[in-house]
Amino acid sequence: MNHALMLARRGLGRVWPNPSVGCVIVKDGLVVGRGHTAPGGRPHGEPQALAMAGDAARGATVYVTLEPCSHFGKTPPCAQALIDAGVARVVSALTDDDPRVAGGGHQMLRDAGITVDTGLCADEAQQINEGFFNRVNQGRPMLTLKLASSFDGRIAMASGESQWITGPEARRNVHMERACHDAVLVGAGTARADDPSLNVRGLGITHQPVRVIAARMLDIPLTGKLAQTARDIPVWLLHGASALPERREAWGACGAKLFEVDEINGTLCPQSMMQALGSAGLTRVYCEGGGSLAAAMLRADLADHVSGYTAGVMLGAEGLASLAPMGFEHLADTPRFDLRDVRRLGADILHRWQRK
Amino acid sequence: MNHALMLARRGLGRVWPNPSVGCVIVKDGLVVGRGHTAPGGRPHGEPQALAMAGDAARGATVYVTLEPCSHFGKTPPCAQALIDAGVARVVSALTDDDPRVAGGGHQMLRDAGITVDTGLCADEAQQINEGFFNRVNQGRPMLTLKLASSFDGRIAMASGESQWITGPEARRNVHMERACHDAVLVGAGTARADDPSLNVRGLGITHQPVRVIAARMLDIPLTGKLAQTARDIPVWLLHGASALPERREAWGACGAKLFEVDEINGTLCPQSMMQALGSAGLTRVYCEGGGSLAAAMLRADLADHVSGYTAGVMLGAEGLASLAPMGFEHLADTPRFDLRDVRRLGADILHRWQRK
Repeated sequence: MNHALMLARRGLGRVWPNPSVGCVIVKDGLVVGRGHTAPGGRPHGEPQALAMAGDAARGATVYVTLEPCSHFGKTPPCAQALIDAGVARVVSALTDDDPRVAGGGHQMLRDAGITVDTGLCADEAQQINEGFFNRVNQGRPMLTLKLASSFDGRIAMASGESQWITGPEARRNVHMERACHDAVLVGAGTARADDPSLNVRGLGITHQPVRVIAARMLDIPLTGKLAQTARDIPVWLLHGASALPERREAWGACGAKLFEVDEINGTLCPQSMMQALGSAGLTRVYCEGGGSLAAAMLRADLADHVSGYTAGVMLGAEGLASLAPMGFEHLADTPRFDLRDVRRLGADILHRWQRK
Repeated sequence: MNHALMLARRGLGRVWPNPSVGCVIVKDGLVVGRGHTAPGGRPHGEPQALAMAGDAARGATVYVTLEPCSHFGKTPPCAQALIDAGVARVVSALTDDDPRVAGGGHQMLRDAGITVDTGLCADEAQQINEGFFNRVNQGRPMLTLKLASSFDGRIAMASGESQWITGPEARRNVHMERACHDAVLVGAGTARADDPSLNVRGLGITHQPVRVIAARMLDIPLTGKLAQTARDIPVWLLHGASALPERREAWGACGAKLFEVDEINGTLCPQSMMQALGSAGLTRVYCEGGGSLAAAMLRADLADHVSGYTAGVMLGAEGLASLAPMGFEHLADTPRFDLRDVRRLGADILHRWQRK
């Protein structure tokens, strides 16, 4: 099962709207087949592993990180494929929360006389597909918030100067984190100030996450990198009802995809933004700020994970804060996170937290 | 030598104005004597180790973390005691920078026919007595800056509410850090806002560091904990020329010790404060803020070490910043620190840095 989990992790960021599933087939103590959900979400892991195993699948044990599907979607049901291959036993980590499956896959296997054991490494499997389960159960993707700052929580000098606070190892890790999310999300202020590419660079990875910008008025220069490369790597814009029609048209002409979401107190509603991204199929979103968007997501309790990068440099209180005001009155109301791990990363530290 | 270094570390915070020195005497492969500088700085480590060794010291090898002294101070010279005891060889980690010694101890031993080897574990020994060397060479103590804050660098809500951001393990570690410094230093704002005790609690340690408050106008209530306990645990006040005579008298009457230091632009001069503390004999000072004092020390490049405590809670930009404005224009001018270590501490993280 650990092998299957490892395979499943490889698909993260590339299989949305589907879950990433790993499958390992064992016969007489030997691995005879393995597979994981392919980029784009198809084919699933099981048929790939079965194809590798061939006749050896007959009487074998199948380890799979999520309940095999039982419905005809864009692929035939994996449970049927396992039955047809004549496997003897299926060990499955989790029941699939997708209402089209929801135990039906396990039942189909049992009805065919196959031994089914569930729950092995369930926590790890749950963690891998947290984004998928969020989308299915809450209609929104999992959100990881990146906060990279100086020791005193600043992301730029008063002048705006910000290159470089963290070192190359930290920036490289940010690209790795981007690569295992379905989309990267920033606010309009960051898009204007930094003119970022928001792509994955320097890792030998060709797959690119969707680039999402929260821009209520769509007031981002059409001459910037995002607009200019929108036909190469998807650009999605979250905007409000008040965005001017000519701006909508101009961005549409660039190749960007537009989503109108609710406004609340003159800003985009965080819940509405996340619901729009969930409806569009995203399961894992990586938010890189700026401070206002990060504060809005935290305030709305939408941040599932936080990746903190801290450099050993002090900018002082006149610098730009990593988080905007959040409007909490009491310490007891502020969002708290549990530490997952902390380590040195070049000259900086990386500390990862998850919602309490 | 590692054994001797371990002994030396035990004295930190308790031996000022002296260095903390460990001494181990080995005869025929057995430890026959050991000692370290006693609280208050006397007796030194060597005579204690010699007393334990007795006749076994004759022909023995002595490991000592700093050059034995060669001058008559408040104790007779340790080098002479080693000669009188008839030791065969002295292995010393470092030459003492104190101008009264400065190689004279090693020379005295060599002149008496004793083999002297120096430089073993010199880096570790240097680190242990960094505060002493700072005092001797620069006239100021070593400064460790503690910055404990929320994830986003805040130390209190806008309302002032600040209990508790970090958890009990972090607070306990702060008490341990206090205990191995000669003095704890805070600004007047912190003394007024928190009415702190600034003592070491909960560790079974009875020794207490000096409590130093930087209060230009001496405007701290005489009804507070510091004033009320100044006769039990020393309270030192750093003030400016503009502090009113009646306040000086009142604090003197409480049992506090007063130091007039230079003012610069309406605040106390950081260099002058540190020189005053060095002249008074302190070797290791632990500064716990607030934000203005911390920023002033960093701005003046006086922070040798920084202990960061970060909690997994977000307060938002309306909270009080851990560091006040520092007045730097360019990122290249801001103070940078090298990471020494980072680890989980209860629900928080502890990250320790040293000046680049």
